[in-house]
Amino acid sequence: MANDALVIFTPSGKRGRFALGTPVLTAARQLGVDLDSVCGGRGICSKCQITPGYGEFPKHGLTVAADALSDWNPVEERYKRIRGLIDGRRLGCQAKVMGDVVIDVPPESQVHKQVIRKSATERHIEMDPATRAVFVEVQEPDMHEPTGDFERLVQALKDQWQIEGVEAGLDILRRLQPVLRKGEWKATVVLNRGNHDAAHRVLDIFPGFHDGPLYGLAVDLGSTTIAAHLCDLSDGKVLASSGLMNPQIRFGEDLMSRVSYAMMNPGGDVEMTRAVREALDSLARAIAQEAGVEPGAIYEMVIVCNPVMHHLLLGIDPVELGQAPFALATSGSLSLDARDLDLPALNRNARVYVLPCIAGHVGADCAAVALSEEPNKSKDMVLIVDVGTNAEILLGNETRVLACSSPTGPAFEGAQISSGQRAAPGAIERVEIDPATKEPRFKVIGCDLWSTEPGFAEATAQTGITGICGSGIIEAVAEMRMAGLVDPGGLIGSAEQTGTARALPYGRTHSYLLHDASATGGPKIMVTQGDIRAIQLAKSALYAGARLLMDEFGVDKVDRVTLAGAFGAHISPKHAMVLGMIPDVPLDRVTSAGNAAGTGARIALLNRAARDQIEATVHDIHKVETAIEPRFQEHFVNANAIPHAVDPFPELAKIVTLPDVSFNAGGGGGGGERRRRRG
Amino acid sequence: MANDALVIFTPSGKRGRFALGTPVLTAARQLGVDLDSVCGGRGICSKCQITPGYGEFPKHGLTVAADALSDWNPVEERYKRIRGLIDGRRLGCQAKVMGDVVIDVPPESQVHKQVIRKSATERHIEMDPATRAVFVEVQEPDMHEPTGDFERLVQALKDQWQIEGVEAGLDILRRLQPVLRKGEWKATVVLNRGNHDAAHRVLDIFPGFHDGPLYGLAVDLGSTTIAAHLCDLSDGKVLASSGLMNPQIRFGEDLMSRVSYAMMNPGGDVEMTRAVREALDSLARAIAQEAGVEPGAIYEMVIVCNPVMHHLLLGIDPVELGQAPFALATSGSLSLDARDLDLPALNRNARVYVLPCIAGHVGADCAAVALSEEPNKSKDMVLIVDVGTNAEILLGNETRVLACSSPTGPAFEGAQISSGQRAAPGAIERVEIDPATKEPRFKVIGCDLWSTEPGFAEATAQTGITGICGSGIIEAVAEMRMAGLVDPGGLIGSAEQTGTARALPYGRTHSYLLHDASATGGPKIMVTQGDIRAIQLAKSALYAGARLLMDEFGVDKVDRVTLAGAFGAHISPKHAMVLGMIPDVPLDRVTSAGNAAGTGARIALLNRAARDQIEATVHDIHKVETAIEPRFQEHFVNANAIPHAVDPFPELAKIVTLPDVSFNAGGGGGGGERRRRRG
Repeated sequence: MANDALVIFTPSGKRGRFALGTPVLTAARQLGVDLDSVCGGRGICSKCQITPGYGEFPKHGLTVAADALSDWNPVEERYKRIRGLIDGRRLGCQAKVMGDVVIDVPPESQVHKQVIRKSATERHIEMDPATRAVFVEVQEPDMHEPTGDFERLVQALKDQWQIEGVEAGLDILRRLQPVLRKGEWKATVVLNRGNHDAAHRVLDIFPGFHDGPLYGLAVDLGSTTIAAHLCDLSDGKVLASSGLMNPQIRFGEDLMSRVSYAMMNPGGDVEMTRAVREALDSLARAIAQEAGVEPGAIYEMVIVCNPVMHHLLLGIDPVELGQAPFALATSGSLSLDARDLDLPALNRNARVYVLPCIAGHVGADCAAVALSEEPNKSKDMVLIVDVGTNAEILLGNETRVLACSSPTGPAFEGAQISSGQRAAPGAIERVEIDPATKEPRFKVIGCDLWSTEPGFAEATAQTGITGICGSGIIEAVAEMRMAGLVDPGGLIGSAEQTGTARALPYGRTHSYLLHDASATGGPKIMVTQGDIRAIQLAKSALYAGARLLMDEFGVDKVDRVTLAGAFGAHISPKHAMVLGMIPDVPLDRVTSAGNAAGTGARIALLNRAARDQIEATVHDIHKVETAIEPRFQEHFVNANAIPHAVDPFPELAKIVTLPDVSFNAGGGGGGGERRRRRG
Repeated sequence: MANDALVIFTPSGKRGRFALGTPVLTAARQLGVDLDSVCGGRGICSKCQITPGYGEFPKHGLTVAADALSDWNPVEERYKRIRGLIDGRRLGCQAKVMGDVVIDVPPESQVHKQVIRKSATERHIEMDPATRAVFVEVQEPDMHEPTGDFERLVQALKDQWQIEGVEAGLDILRRLQPVLRKGEWKATVVLNRGNHDAAHRVLDIFPGFHDGPLYGLAVDLGSTTIAAHLCDLSDGKVLASSGLMNPQIRFGEDLMSRVSYAMMNPGGDVEMTRAVREALDSLARAIAQEAGVEPGAIYEMVIVCNPVMHHLLLGIDPVELGQAPFALATSGSLSLDARDLDLPALNRNARVYVLPCIAGHVGADCAAVALSEEPNKSKDMVLIVDVGTNAEILLGNETRVLACSSPTGPAFEGAQISSGQRAAPGAIERVEIDPATKEPRFKVIGCDLWSTEPGFAEATAQTGITGICGSGIIEAVAEMRMAGLVDPGGLIGSAEQTGTARALPYGRTHSYLLHDASATGGPKIMVTQGDIRAIQLAKSALYAGARLLMDEFGVDKVDRVTLAGAFGAHISPKHAMVLGMIPDVPLDRVTSAGNAAGTGARIALLNRAARDQIEATVHDIHKVETAIEPRFQEHFVNANAIPHAVDPFPELAKIVTLPDVSFNAGGGGGGGERRRRRG
């Protein structure tokens, strides 16, 4: 009888011969099979669960006998009794090879498990987080061979985990001795190693085996909205997503007014820095509460943001970003201690990674969108528009990628809109207006029913109907245009002109009443002439940015468009095209990517290599400066109408009827509707 | 005519041929000649001054013509006019090679200049500090090639100084943009790179060329006294030395009572940590003021201390150091930010290096003594005793070095002594007592005269005569013994027994009046029976430690003794031997090393390689634990008498007469004096 046996691992297909009695975990390690273990094979952590296969494996020409693995042992018995174990599973550290065997490593036992990221195009994120926990047994001190407890911990990490180069700050050194003694010289160590770090940093230490999860926060820090995803660093799962308004809004609604505030008010930048850091800290607390976890278990935060937010977050006066040549203080990625950013909610040793900026007006948020949407890997010409107060626009394909930012203002995020609000339960997010009756129906966040469906009132009784969010205002304005309530110049017609009592006088202009909740003490939700103007300015800026990149690339059309939005509901491609936010393209080539910047942040949080990747990519992205480009102004002015007056949209005409109305100041009576055909 | 020329540098002897027109600095760099430059050859810093030699150089077979270097140029003219230049000197970056020439690099133009350290054995410290300043010209931002200001600074350091790997914290990033613009894209950057650092850290940045000096602080943090040397990091010069009492004394005079305080009082360790950090900070401020420099120009601090002080400084509860196996939280060297130790007096980005500890009772101060005195390089058997509240003792030679610490208590530092005080102006530091008349004479710190010399009263009028420092009490007790005022058991005789009115009743014992300043409102300075007892305990502990190491090494005598003391005056070898502090050895083989621990700290401050060296050496030092060694108690008890009763001192007998008196409780009348002969 042979004294060794063949072990084949699936799904990797790795195989090798091992002496009888070799634990499966040991065999996996020697073959480089991705089998997790936190406790280092001590039967404590259960991360190394495997499923042995028995019987015939013709593919491998192998018959696996029932005794191919050692018998179920007391450690496994105990584990199953106390913590439970799926039938057919074994602990890889306990089960020993006793004959030829096929071993399956289930996905949850893989360290580098793949997480499916839901987005326009489903993509996989390989788990390789910078932060992980390991269990070690530390040698007790010996008076005759004196070394420090920390030095023996370092030695244990080296011997038991082959981890070399370990550093700890004073906080850890301070806690080390009682923790090691409490755990009887066993401890679980939380280690972090960023993509530029030579050494591993000890972020935390627990007595004995600690199997509490480690969390990370991916943050998209926008001018108007701050959105965050709380992720489990072991499996990449998003436990909660939350957002809040950026409190810097009180210093100026758009970026340039915040730069001006800093220039005009000594100490103004310090005030804004404090405001945004406090907001980040409360967001971390809120999202942890929402997920029912301790914020102190958040060990890492990845932040993406535009350059002005970047500087204000770091405490750098943004004044240089307000004037040519728009020099950044630093453009590279940053790895910081969370305490340097005053974030006491997080673990006290938590780390922060900030993605690199591309240029003075094209920030880490744009880099994150590029990481998420990968225009540099696209075969066809893709336009990616990340809609926010400052829109990030990318154009290109695998040959070349261009980027710019465009100051759209906060209208797309529901700010500067009379009934605007951030995306939250109670906010109108979808709107339809019947072209014949001019009557609206809508959906609010937190309820799946249309407002005209039975049960809607009851379903929304708790949240109420509180305002319109970004996607809601885009749909409302586009629907108003399609219903003939608004003319191509953006004017709202009167009740007389439009034939609906919902068109109300509003100062010297008109507004459209979307919903009146005043009977029940709620607000009157209206779209005013001012709202239309704000949306027109915003969409013109967006469109002008996209056109500028197309000019620069030398193309007059794109193959596809990806719309990415700030936190919350997605932007409707059809309505975006009716508004003229994006260039003409077949509707089925317009996709929504949700919060692409946030997704990019999440990828960087879960995978260290992605950080290297985006740091390399940003150097290859060619950046176009809108602020000094005369053609940007030209495109901007020409893009004001709905739809665009000088740039016919044949693709749009195929899917939607735009009424040929005109409500010019002097004009009376609504014009007849007809199917619009051009080109 | 040749188009190149031979250039020979002295004192290095390096030589090479260079194209005519090559600046001397360039030639020096290409040959690896140690010629300083902060401005990088721009004629600003004057660090590259050289002295060309003209005429015959038979040794080199060379005749140097008067036109071997280019003419004196306007940059040099201007420099000489404004800042002055020694005759015969040129600026190496301006003077160009025009013919064969011999160039001398004066010591002050060498980066790695040698600093002579005054001590028992003069030794040289090669300058290679971790902190230095360089001048750079940074490329201006270009909108079309967007990079951050910091990234362009990093590029400039790489291009102009071949410095790779540069990091900066938020404080520097925050200040970078205004500094670069103020300096018109020229800046002086203070860089630090510790012996374990992969990258250089930016500690400070100044607009344009900044020629302010950089300072470092070498600190010997003792249980009783904190001593510091302020050094210029460019030439190693000590600008000021200062000290203060460790404010932790109020929590316990010796180390174990501080450990007890921490154990008995929750939060007691935190209180002690705060106290010592505040003391370090005020010491830094005081020493900078004394030297007339800005404390903000202190960029680095090196600290040596015993393990308990080490833990309390770092904020680590020292409880484990109070019980076997005396485990240190960490034994390795530490590189920290000064702000982690709450030291706001220093530059805000200053770094702190703490030397490694050897064992639970043998600390970084002992490592520093080893670095300074190098017992591991000694041919003969050397005993090094660093006298303090906790004495560090090293014994060995190039084959092997042993170390222990001994809890002497604070008596040798003037504490727990009735008239004791720290070494400061006004303190009695030298004492002589006439064996015939029993009359004393003494010297005080700050005055070169003996108290019996004319002008002494006037010279000390300002400081007064305030007490006795450590070296003073050692001499006083030894002199009292030699004058027959004290018997071998340590009892002070009465006036009747000793024949002097200075022997005063003091409770149930006697004291000796050294100086009475009460007429002028000053104190009565006495040596009491309690003082003698304190010194006896202290010296017994010291002696017992030394004997324990000798036992361990297997030797019964040593070849030489080095006495190192805390801050201030040196210990007199003769008096130390009379007291029985050290084993018997010829008097001329006893040397004083001053504050060896402080010197070790200074070496580590000025030379990065010395840090590597001591980190390696501490692993080879074998440590002996006095606390659990029964023979230590035995030696301690046996060493109580003055001189030691059971261990005859033949060498001592050659140099001093010890009267055979006895003042046992019942005994009357002083015994006659006779030359003491034993062995």
